[in-house]
Order: sequence, then structure tokens, then C-alpha cells
Amino acid sequence: MKNKPSSAVILLSGGQDSTTCLAWAMQKFDEIFALTIHYGQLHKIELESAKKIARLNKIPLKIYKTDLFKEFTKNALLNKEIAIKIPKNKLPSTFVPGRNLIFLSIAAIYAKQLDTTNIITGVCQTDYSGYPDCRDNFIKSLEKTLSLAMETKFKIHTPLMWLTKAETVKLMQQLGKIGLLKHTHTCYKGKRPACGKCPACLLRLKGFKEAGIKDSLPYK
Amino acid sequence: MKNKPSSAVILLSGGQDSTTCLAWAMQKFDEIFALTIHYGQLHKIELESAKKIARLNKIPLKIYKTDLFKEFTKNALLNKEIAIKIPKNKLPSTFVPGRNLIFLSIAAIYAKQLDTTNIITGVCQTDYSGYPDCRDNFIKSLEKTLSLAMETKFKIHTPLMWLTKAETVKLMQQLGKIGLLKHTHTCYKGKRPACGKCPACLLRLKGFKEAGIKDSLPYK
Repeated sequence: MKNKPSSAVILLSGGQDSTTCLAWAMQKFDEIFALTIHYGQLHKIELESAKKIARLNKIPLKIYKTDLFKEFTKNALLNKEIAIKIPKNKLPSTFVPGRNLIFLSIAAIYAKQLDTTNIITGVCQTDYSGYPDCRDNFIKSLEKTLSLAMETKFKIHTPLMWLTKAETVKLMQQLGKIGLLKHTHTCYKGKRPACGKCPACLLRLKGFKEAGIKDSLPYK
Repeated sequence: MKNKPSSAVILLSGGQDSTTCLAWAMQKFDEIFALTIHYGQLHKIELESAKKIARLNKIPLKIYKTDLFKEFTKNALLNKEIAIKIPKNKLPSTFVPGRNLIFLSIAAIYAKQLDTTNIITGVCQTDYSGYPDCRDNFIKSLEKTLSLAMETKFKIHTPLMWLTKAETVKLMQQLGKIGLLKHTHTCYKGKRPACGKCPACLLRLKGFKEAGIKDSLPYK
């Protein structure tokens, strides 16, 4: 009798990190369920990227739409009138309070429904951009909380947690999927070609440069 | 200069426990913001109870509607075709996976917006009915997780955690608000007069009986 295939739910945003995690997951799990949260982000291009990446890899994708963050938070990712600022010693204006908390909680509820306990997310402490919900201590604490909430031993996999952006780029190359990154979206301005100047674009470009690999994403 | 008033967000379901917590909170905090989550519960009477209780106590109430649990879970509180069963050593069919996790996470995001760190919920381990997300270890773990998620020291207040239902009834009497309980909703059947026979009604009636206080809620 064949063993039950190993399975996982992956949070797929359509960005570089979650797409790299997907490539990682495809080597590790037999069955993968992608979940994209449409939370009112200003740029629909993110959703289109997630759909395209899922389709190209034949991964079933569920898109769940919520107005929670529009209803309860104000930040530069959801409100056009707020400028993108990344001050020192303060939370960036692009921080969406509770975002990874809610996204991973939904992923766990979805995993429970699918009868799997593996959850994958592309959070990273090394280049964490000042978001507290990307840190390892948050993820570890949440993993315990989710398990207690549903009496289910969840495992949150964070393959990028301790990698630099350059190492993430190299990982994708090792996984043989570097070409997939041309379909990902990173730019805070929501543009394609990407602006190449916002903090998100700069972080991405720096990573490719340090890895010595050319980014196939078109830039202005 | 007057100190800033102390404030809190309370999860108000319109049931006996959260209403007792509201009476408790009104003695403890200067400013209270009630939050009711409309998550597709079969019985609209719960929402009506929450509205009435907030109105009677002049507490601002926010109702937030989400289809998350309809989308990702199946259980007797959301699906008519599922019977109410409370087996031994297994999760009850009324368990909504992730409910308190999501409710308290939303409450924390709302609290962050309101610039308060106090969150109140009526969960109770003593009579916890087999729901893992009513236990103290879950609440403690979540409190830490929420704080890490938003770099904010949240405090989850659970005044009923270690009380029996009888003690909860007595607490409400001591707080001088026992009459308020006639507006609360408990019955799993969503009926008014209450059925008096479902597990929720039986637990409530037992509490009043043991406290030696008459329940002013009409029963069939």
C-alpha cells in the first residue's frame, strides 16, 4: 500500500519569496495547495502573478478575499494617500498590522480542512525590512498558538528565514526554477516594468547583484 | 492633567459570558469598544442580542462581517445539515476551527487601531465544552503571539477563565447587572423562548440552578 502523500498549504503572494518557497515545496511535498489572500492590496498585478505562477506549475490555487485590513488598518500598501516610508527604529508605513498573523491563521484553518498540518511561508528575518511578523520568534510562537487553537500539530515551514536575498536567488537557481522569477511581482509601485527605485525593488536588485545572477524581470 | 482614560476592546457575542465580561469591564475600564463578529452563525438572534446589550449600556459596537468560516470550515454552528454532537474524547460538532484565534486576532488589530492594548473575552476553561481555543494555555500563547506580531504588549483579559457557570451567574449579580442576562442568547437552536434542552441551554440552566438564582430568560 502506498503511503499517504505528504501535503502542504503554501501562502503564495506572487512575489519572489513565496515563489521560491513554492519551488522548494515542489521538491519536498507530493501535494501542494496554494493560498493567495486578496486583502485589498493596491496592485492587482500581485494577484495576477500568483495566478500565473500557480498555473505554470499546475498547483491548485485558492484565492480568498477579505476586507479585514481595509476595515481596521491604515498603511501605505492599502491607502494611496499614505507615502512609503521606512524610518529607522519605527515601523515602516508599509507595515500592515496583523497581516502574517491573519494570513497564517487562515492557512492553518485551510490546512485543517484539507487534513494536512504543513504550512509554508516565505517570511525572512535576515532582510525583514522592519516587519515584526516576519521574525522567527513570531513564527515559532504562532506555530504553538495554532496547534493549541485546533488541537492539531501544525508545522510552519520557513525555508527563507535565515537566507539573504542573494542566497534566496541562488536557492531558486539550484532548484532549477530561476526563470519563474520573471513572472513574480515585487515593486511597491505596482508597475511592470518594475520601477527599480522603491525599497522593495532595490532589495530585490541587490539580491540578484550579490548572487551574480541577472534578474529576468523587466525594469524601467 | 487628567490621565488618559484606560480603554479596552471586548468581544461581545450577545451571550451570557461575554455580557458578564462587559459588566466586569465597565467597572474596570473608562472606555470600552465592543466588537461583534458576524461569521455566518445560523442564528441572527445572537447579533440582535449583542446590539441590544451594547445599546442598553451605551457602549459603541462595531460589527464586522466575515465569510472566512463559511469558506473554510464545516460545523454544526454554520451548517444546518450537521447535527449537534458532543462526543467524549473528540471535538464537538459545534467546534468552529480557529474561531477564537481569528476573533481575538481581529480584536487585537482593532485595539491597535484604537491605540489600546486591552482585549477582553469570555472564554472559560472550567466549562469549556471541549473547545481547545477556550483554554488558558491557548490564550496565554496567543497573547504572546499577538504581541510579537505587532510589537505591542497586548493583554488578553479572561475574567471567567476559572469560574464555574454558577460563579459566573453570581459574578453578574455582584456586579449589579443580573437583569441584563434576560437579553442574552445561549440556545444552540437559536430560539426565543430558548429550547431549554440543547447542551448550551442545559449548561446555562445548571449554572443558574447551582447559583440559586432564577434565569430571567424566557424558556419554552
